[in-house]
Amino acid sequence: MTHSSDEPRGELELVQRLRERLRPPPRVAGPAAPAVAFGDDMASVSARHPGLLWTVDMLMDGVDFVSREHGWEAVGRKAMAVNLSDCAAMGVQPVAALCAVAIDERLSLRDAETLVVAAHEMGLRYGCPIVGGDTNSWKSPTVVSISIAAETPAGQRPVGRGGAQAGDRIWVSGPLGGSILGRHLRFEPLVELGLTLAREIVPHAMIDISDGLALDLWRVLDASGVGACLDAGALETAIHEDARRLEQRDGRPALEHALHDGEDFELVVAVRADTDAGLLRSLGLIPIGEIVAEGGLQLRGTDGRTSPVPIRGWEHFR
Amino acid sequence: MTHSSDEPRGELELVQRLRERLRPPPRVAGPAAPAVAFGDDMASVSARHPGLLWTVDMLMDGVDFVSREHGWEAVGRKAMAVNLSDCAAMGVQPVAALCAVAIDERLSLRDAETLVVAAHEMGLRYGCPIVGGDTNSWKSPTVVSISIAAETPAGQRPVGRGGAQAGDRIWVSGPLGGSILGRHLRFEPLVELGLTLAREIVPHAMIDISDGLALDLWRVLDASGVGACLDAGALETAIHEDARRLEQRDGRPALEHALHDGEDFELVVAVRADTDAGLLRSLGLIPIGEIVAEGGLQLRGTDGRTSPVPIRGWEHFR
Repeated sequence: MTHSSDEPRGELELVQRLRERLRPPPRVAGPAAPAVAFGDDMASVSARHPGLLWTVDMLMDGVDFVSREHGWEAVGRKAMAVNLSDCAAMGVQPVAALCAVAIDERLSLRDAETLVVAAHEMGLRYGCPIVGGDTNSWKSPTVVSISIAAETPAGQRPVGRGGAQAGDRIWVSGPLGGSILGRHLRFEPLVELGLTLAREIVPHAMIDISDGLALDLWRVLDASGVGACLDAGALETAIHEDARRLEQRDGRPALEHALHDGEDFELVVAVRADTDAGLLRSLGLIPIGEIVAEGGLQLRGTDGRTSPVPIRGWEHFR
Repeated sequence: MTHSSDEPRGELELVQRLRERLRPPPRVAGPAAPAVAFGDDMASVSARHPGLLWTVDMLMDGVDFVSREHGWEAVGRKAMAVNLSDCAAMGVQPVAALCAVAIDERLSLRDAETLVVAAHEMGLRYGCPIVGGDTNSWKSPTVVSISIAAETPAGQRPVGRGGAQAGDRIWVSGPLGGSILGRHLRFEPLVELGLTLAREIVPHAMIDISDGLALDLWRVLDASGVGACLDAGALETAIHEDARRLEQRDGRPALEHALHDGEDFELVVAVRADTDAGLLRSLGLIPIGEIVAEGGLQLRGTDGRTSPVPIRGWEHFR
């Protein structure tokens, strides 16, 4: 692939350019506009339905799943779960989904049915049935795209990415890294936890880790106009045993897996410094650092010295 | 592909099986349920937002478009237009869209940007900006999936497929057949006409022709539990010049192209027999037959004899 000088490079730059070119029209940007910025985990449907959000995720065979290994039930389950995780990240209640598929024509229609029904059943467990869709077949690997709609609970606001403030504490909902060993297929989306956090804690910012802690936290920093300093000692307690197992295999430090592996689907929140730490701990959250005024994403080592964390993780078009 | 005895055959059967297995939960099926049946052009989002509908369409390179021939602007335009046509078919006002893409990684990111921006600009012309999405790349042909949300105008109801009654007259919004010669890329979705028909005529049933008059009208008959008799003489006036040009090339009668070619994106309506024909004609509609109690889809020839119309058209998984 060749690049001309003004061609976007990588998914982050493409999304940035689209954000600029897809300006919301005045009626959406007006005073009735809801508190969700373009490019967040979910978007507002319409100013007439301010509490209603929606989002879409597309999964491709050979990229997000390997159908021969994982089977169609796991694929359908994951296709729904990644969307439910976006709802968790906004602190909203999923209510309905649409499912579009392009099925490799070499597959049986039973496989297509298994995929869609598995997605539907996963959704139903969280109050989110599939209510419509589009079924197609073609000569290429299978693609599944699920759109999901969610309601903001009465009296609450969706929790976006853009509200983190210097001095906030950063917490993560569970240990990270090594999800490729299987958790990326089996994870339970943290819908209930997201709703609880939005109601009880009212975080300044929240995101789910789909592309890795470093990259997803960077998205929060970028949207909020702040920096962050993670604490290596604290992060040690937030390393998943899968990350340590992966270190045994590939020699890459478990801490790096925790920072950069994608598809943990844990929640990262930025909360006021005076938030009840006991309550956060009782919800299973682990403190990992703090929001600072600037300086990007830094890691403070156990020796007290800070160093920049490279912003990498899963990014398309790289 | 091998079929076991209880395996669904073809897209119609798959959709029928999914309709049975994806039963809406009681809260949606309850008294607050809106007037849209599962499997219609659009679905209700939630009982809390009865006038809000949504739908999704997925387009694949090499199936729904040929990117090398058509270019990415035409692809983006079409991806949005087919969704807008679904809104037209329900008589509702599109308000926002989500766009998910999996781009062939051999393409430039500029192409991806062109596609999404073209879809956005097409949507904006009908009041329907892209408000979010998901961008991906992979080693296979490009897939684009657009979800669209639409509002039912105050005091009106969405026009579904299931309300046609024996004695209704069938009208079509324009001449049919041969769209493959170029109209399938350049068509203007009939959003305004759909809204006008819903408001002024209140059709018993309406659908847009995406897979061919015969197949899409059959969907109306199937959902309504009725039959239809088309008038060959009347249909002669509803044959597009492209269908006649195609007859010159492939020798297949232009009438067959009008009956079975996909992607006309005209509207077909079933209206009460006493509907003001002058009003319908002033809107450009052409009468083509009537709804009857039973007997599937029949064609009455100019000799007065009727014969069954084969239900075929574009169907995936065939």
